[in-house]
Amino acid sequence: MYSVSGKQQVCQLFFVQVILIVLMGALITYGPEADANSLKKHGQSGDHGWKHVKKPDTNPLQIYPMYQDVHMMIWIGFGFLMTFLRRYGQSGMGLTFLLGAILIQVAMVCEGAMNFRIGTAASLSLRSLLNADIAVATPLISMGALLGKTTYMQLVFMGIFELIMFSVNKYVGEHVFMAVDAGDTMFVHVFGAYFGLAVSFVLGIKDKPTKHNLEGASYNSDIFAMIGTVFLWLFWPSFNSATLEGDDQQRAIINTLLSISSSCVMAFATSALVSSDSKFNMVHVQNSTLAGGVAIGTAAGMMCKPVGALAIGGLAGVLSVLGYKYLTPLIRKYLRIHDTCGVHNLHGIPGVLGALFGALMAGLATEDSYDYSLYEIFPARAPDTEEKLAEMRDNYGISAGLDRTAMEQASYQLIVLAITIAMAIVSGLITGILMRVLVCGSISEEQKFDDKIHWELEEEIVQKPPIKLDTISSDSDPLSMEDI
Amino acid sequence: MYSVSGKQQVCQLFFVQVILIVLMGALITYGPEADANSLKKHGQSGDHGWKHVKKPDTNPLQIYPMYQDVHMMIWIGFGFLMTFLRRYGQSGMGLTFLLGAILIQVAMVCEGAMNFRIGTAASLSLRSLLNADIAVATPLISMGALLGKTTYMQLVFMGIFELIMFSVNKYVGEHVFMAVDAGDTMFVHVFGAYFGLAVSFVLGIKDKPTKHNLEGASYNSDIFAMIGTVFLWLFWPSFNSATLEGDDQQRAIINTLLSISSSCVMAFATSALVSSDSKFNMVHVQNSTLAGGVAIGTAAGMMCKPVGALAIGGLAGVLSVLGYKYLTPLIRKYLRIHDTCGVHNLHGIPGVLGALFGALMAGLATEDSYDYSLYEIFPARAPDTEEKLAEMRDNYGISAGLDRTAMEQASYQLIVLAITIAMAIVSGLITGILMRVLVCGSISEEQKFDDKIHWELEEEIVQKPPIKLDTISSDSDPLSMEDI
Amino acid sequence: MYSVSGKQQVCQLFFVQVILIVLMGALITYGPEADANSLKKHGQSGDHGWKHVKKPDTNPLQIYPMYQDVHMMIWIGFGFLMTFLRRYGQSGMGLTFLLGAILIQVAMVCEGAMNFRIGTAASLSLRSLLNADIAVATPLISMGALLGKTTYMQLVFMGIFELIMFSVNKYVGEHVFMAVDAGDTMFVHVFGAYFGLAVSFVLGIKDKPTKHNLEGASYNSDIFAMIGTVFLWLFWPSFNSATLEGDDQQRAIINTLLSISSSCVMAFATSALVSSDSKFNMVHVQNSTLAGGVAIGTAAGMMCKPVGALAIGGLAGVLSVLGYKYLTPLIRKYLRIHDTCGVHNLHGIPGVLGALFGALMAGLATEDSYDYSLYEIFPARAPDTEEKLAEMRDNYGISAGLDRTAMEQASYQLIVLAITIAMAIVSGLITGILMRVLVCGSISEEQKFDDKIHWELEEEIVQKPPIKLDTISSDSDPLSMEDI
Repeated sequence: MYSVSGKQQVCQLFFVQVILIVLMGALITYGPEADANSLKKHGQSGDHGWKHVKKPDTNPLQIYPMYQDVHMMIWIGFGFLMTFLRRYGQSGMGLTFLLGAILIQVAMVCEGAMNFRIGTAASLSLRSLLNADIAVATPLISMGALLGKTTYMQLVFMGIFELIMFSVNKYVGEHVFMAVDAGDTMFVHVFGAYFGLAVSFVLGIKDKPTKHNLEGASYNSDIFAMIGTVFLWLFWPSFNSATLEGDDQQRAIINTLLSISSSCVMAFATSALVSSDSKFNMVHVQNSTLAGGVAIGTAAGMMCKPVGALAIGGLAGVLSVLGYKYLTPLIRKYLRIHDTCGVHNLHGIPGVLGALFGALMAGLATEDSYDYSLYEIFPARAPDTEEKLAEMRDNYGISAGLDRTAMEQASYQLIVLAITIAMAIVSGLITGILMRVLVCGSISEEQKFDDKIHWELEEEIVQKPPIKLDTISSDSDPLSMEDI
Repeated sequence: MYSVSGKQQVCQLFFVQVILIVLMGALITYGPEADANSLKKHGQSGDHGWKHVKKPDTNPLQIYPMYQDVHMMIWIGFGFLMTFLRRYGQSGMGLTFLLGAILIQVAMVCEGAMNFRIGTAASLSLRSLLNADIAVATPLISMGALLGKTTYMQLVFMGIFELIMFSVNKYVGEHVFMAVDAGDTMFVHVFGAYFGLAVSFVLGIKDKPTKHNLEGASYNSDIFAMIGTVFLWLFWPSFNSATLEGDDQQRAIINTLLSISSSCVMAFATSALVSSDSKFNMVHVQNSTLAGGVAIGTAAGMMCKPVGALAIGGLAGVLSVLGYKYLTPLIRKYLRIHDTCGVHNLHGIPGVLGALFGALMAGLATEDSYDYSLYEIFPARAPDTEEKLAEMRDNYGISAGLDRTAMEQASYQLIVLAITIAMAIVSGLITGILMRVLVCGSISEEQKFDDKIHWELEEEIVQKPPIKLDTISSDSDPLSMEDI
Repeated sequence: MYSVSGKQQVCQLFFVQVILIVLMGALITYGPEADANSLKKHGQSGDHGWKHVKKPDTNPLQIYPMYQDVHMMIWIGFGFLMTFLRRYGQSGMGLTFLLGAILIQVAMVCEGAMNFRIGTAASLSLRSLLNADIAVATPLISMGALLGKTTYMQLVFMGIFELIMFSVNKYVGEHVFMAVDAGDTMFVHVFGAYFGLAVSFVLGIKDKPTKHNLEGASYNSDIFAMIGTVFLWLFWPSFNSATLEGDDQQRAIINTLLSISSSCVMAFATSALVSSDSKFNMVHVQNSTLAGGVAIGTAAGMMCKPVGALAIGGLAGVLSVLGYKYLTPLIRKYLRIHDTCGVHNLHGIPGVLGALFGALMAGLATEDSYDYSLYEIFPARAPDTEEKLAEMRDNYGISAGLDRTAMEQASYQLIVLAITIAMAIVSGLITGILMRVLVCGSISEEQKFDDKIHWELEEEIVQKPPIKLDTISSDSDPLSMEDI
């Protein structure tokens, strides 16, 4: 591992942003809906009076409120959720802010590059902004496994590499294997969790993770973190439904709300059940309450019935708390994987559960219960022969598919889950090795979980070595103690 | 009162969620807009190309941004508003989170049951999610009167019973007496406040409420609470207008914004007026600034003119602060009702004021000022005879009403207010007695307003008996003091 | 300077609200979209079944989610951004709350009065609520320069006077000189910043500003302030695009997101670059990350290309941090202007940069790149002769303009920038003098940056003179220390 100065990291940060500006300049342009000129060329009709815009079928602005919900999830949700450490709140919030701002640009470039590959123009629209936000959730999940143990440039590097692999994996899953994953349970949550755990494994391989002095919450940091939790909880229905349309979208909203409500209650109950005094634990409440949002993701738009959504959400809440209580210590002890935020319990386990549930629902899906929208939700199940397709295409706009059976679709769902996990672990291991080798610095054991490594803190008091309290009164402002 | 262990409470919590899953499975299904299959059956036309969905008159997703505003009010608004106590912030936030997640499910089941009674299917749509959120506000208001004085299962039990009574009362008020209450001033605010006060009366009947050591704010808890206040303040226009349409909805947004702005200014001014040093008081600012949202609720969609909205909001702000200053101590002393958050001053007094204002506006409503929308806003005033109705029905979709006069409508508004108060008090008293008798635990005087009763707190320091500060420096991490 | 008691200030506050109620009653009514009656009169067709409302071309409610985004920016964004001072958080939040609630009413009256001048009715609609929120941002920016140094009535007085001048300046810029400023970079940010600095200059003229004991952040206050920063950052795309339509609006959203992302990254990098240890500085992160939103404002709807948006945002981020680091101390030392929040660096410099960028883009705008929407974005460039206009008017609804060339439009943009700065400085100086002379109180040097001047604080401890820590343990509750 090379030792690099802070100045070098700063230069790397400037370099990344400059490269992004250059790439955007070379690759990306406005989409037709946002381009003054191309709209005119395509919309020559002009027969409706003053409106020169040829209206698309749905108002493009309809997506914007949902986009802003997801936007809040990424920065307010993830950002504040990561303030739970008592001396790492400014980094938790601040690095999410920085990382998110870089990585949405990276995600746009990646989407542009992927689209370029499949032949259409690399152009920006509200939908691509939404896709960028969703993509960025992936490295932020991985960051949760590493919180407090890396430099910011290590995270930036990881994020860039992860987004590239994320794009490839999602392309393979969605377009090659035609798996369905409305809420990105596999592509975002499972991938992000196992990628982050793999990186954490590599980073912790030399020094066995030990319980650190600063690795814990304070009374106020726990309340700050609840800001993140609740915003994530509130807007998860938007996250799972934003890319859907029509009745699928309504159903995804309802299913997600039910699932995440059930996981909230079950997480509280399980938390009290496994504690010695039947009390709630803040770590569980901050995280496991959200497990239902992950678990319903793949099946969000499917006809799983309200009771199905409640059941899977409740199960996810239970498993997530049990994971925090029993699995995390084992993973730490035997696999030497340290998982600061417990992303395995919030995104890993519920993600796998959700992918399995999605496969189950896909295996149960019949034209009887879905009617023609079966072929909208599972495009690969649409007939591939002209005669059977004709009426559906004319009446409902169904495109030709692969004529898959329900069982086949379920199998492909499982295959994509396996591929996602494998891809996440392998690319995470490689990324972790590169993060140790590359010149983006590293954090020593003593510097972990401490804001002062990243921030010019105002208070002198925390930058001094341990002091006796009764000496504070003489050499410092008496206010400084209370104000912290 | 039975003594119950924490384990029993946990089992009760699991039991409630399981029952909810069973009830949902038995009673509730997707509404047509969210159902892949029933949409097909009803929308056979399919003559508009690929869109298979028979479009309803308005886009069902239009309600979603407003729903999310209300969603934020319930969890961020109520949740953070209840963090104002210095050592009960985690419970204030956490119990709102838990209670809300259970009670939206209860509210859906109640709505399903009520709809079942009146003959339509018990089905979920975005509108029923919105109704569930609005309903849940009621027990959360009541919780404000009890904050820090109950176990979580007492609150859950209270919430379930209260939502049943709420549903009955709202059904009677809206469908039997045909009162208008756009912003649910009577059905939510008045009902929630007097129900909570009645419960608090019962719980405090044995031990006279005394000023508790921990019943107060800290510097940071007051700022956390302001998160709640401001989110409630910002989204109140959505709360009061979400169930309306067309010009009524626009008017409700405008009226609510004006009223709540005026109440904010007047609450600040009155707060400074009644204090000894002309300073503002955080309790008033956190609560009374919102009184205008309550007070305009019933009349939100009516033609009360901008000046009317400003006047009623200002008056509510003044009365609310005066209530905190002068009435709360009297109620506490003479009626032995302890009201932790002062819900009587934020929801009770402004709610009654708002109901009276709504009755006044109903009494002044003429076809001259409302034109045909008079019969949309006040359906009971629509003619009941065929000849007078025909043209309006054909042109504007007005249904037959009860041919009420303005005075009659005003009288029914007042009757519904009286019924609501009576129902709230009686059912609150019964609920309070049941809460003492039932095996859902209780909180002793020493345990009040203290997070450690519900939470595994990280810091040992707060769980110790009073200690001298100079002993801390020797037996604990010097950081622990600052971090709290 | 007159000495005024707190009671006098309270009376002034009541007086202002009463005057506002009277003025609203005299001047303002519901707009046609929100008026039950006038809708009927204008919409007599009634040929579409039950819907009696003559639908406007676009759904008026479409603006509401964006309005709520801006609403959150004003109260949550500005409010929490101003909590960064360690002992002035309640005032930062609370005075933003109070000031905003008064000033949206003032802004509505001002808009009503301006509209009255130009001949249309003074009526309220969702658009006028949005305009009021945007207008209120101006005095809140000025407040940033004065934070902690004034009484609340001084701020109220300043805000009223500033909104009047703001309305005049915006009218002149938009309607007389026909400058384009979609995101109000000139009208809101530049005006607000220089107005505030001018007031601060007058207030500081007698006592040279000195570094104050309480003028700094604490660990938690810095995290509270990040709530404000992130909400502002998230919703800036809504702020810059809310008043636009069609492809212009989409483009403004995309441009603003790119610009503010780039400024976020560049502000972080520059912050680390100029610090001694390559660490980030919270002041920079809280403010300069937002500079890209200001800098893209004028050109938000223009065809500046994604790369242009990224470049201008990045440049703004760099300049803003450099301003905090090097320019603010100079301005303080040589011009005696104290700028508490550094509004010159967040709104002043990026605002001027944005106005120049807007002029550049206006100078480069051709019909080739914009097609007919050139005349929608720059109405003054539309032809003024009948023959050239006819086809465009019929097909695209373009109105007659002034037949300006690109260079002429660019020049007018620069002229309006110069007028805005001049108007802000002159009216700010006058307002500052009036604020010292008028009977709205003043703050002494010792009272600065201290919440206890405005608030009845719960904790006695902070109101005592400096005490030795070891005496606390004996004469106060041991909890009180931790709770603060």
